[in-house]
Amino acid sequence: MVTDTEQRAKIFAALADPTRLRMVELLNRQSEVSGSDLAHQLGISLALFCHHSKILAEAGVIQVRKEGQTKYNSLNRSVLTTCFTDLAIAPDK
Amino acid sequence: MVTDTEQRAKIFAALADPTRLRMVELLNRQSEVSGSDLAHQLGISLALFCHHSKILAEAGVIQVRKEGQTKYNSLNRSVLTTCFTDLAIAPDK
Repeated sequence: MVTDTEQRAKIFAALADPTRLRMVELLNRQSEVSGSDLAHQLGISLALFCHHSKILAEAGVIQVRKEGQTKYNSLNRSVLTTCFTDLAIAPDK
Repeated sequence: MVTDTEQRAKIFAALADPTRLRMVELLNRQSEVSGSDLAHQLGISLALFCHHSKILAEAGVIQVRKEGQTKYNSLNRSVLTTCFTDLAIAPDK
């Protein structure tokens, strides 16, 4: 759960990079994607993908599930939705 | 309008700081607030407030209106809403 401002700042910091934003956009359209598939879709090396994936996972934006040799990435939509809703969803005054 | 990934990354970078997040949260509950009022609500100096306000304004998150000697800050909700909606609002698959 997203509860405090520090944690939310960490989530926004994880999103403050064009490559990581594109990862989230791609994951938003798919359920679960392997690291190598996602790196291929992004046109980046697996090493660079792992770097960005780690930052997103540490902030709680994505979750990673290991099955055999493959790591599957998926979006943690509830974290993003809570984080965003608290901040901007209010009627215009 | 929020159109490209670079611009969105800039918006998230502006939000990746606890003080600036608190500014946005406070502005989300109020229509327009003067800089000195907002600095007081945040418990920070006017100089520090101006620093953070500038970063939020440059990213398009807030708008600043000058009236006489006073600068009024307000939240640019449409920018935040567009930025967030594209990223996370999709049905769970």
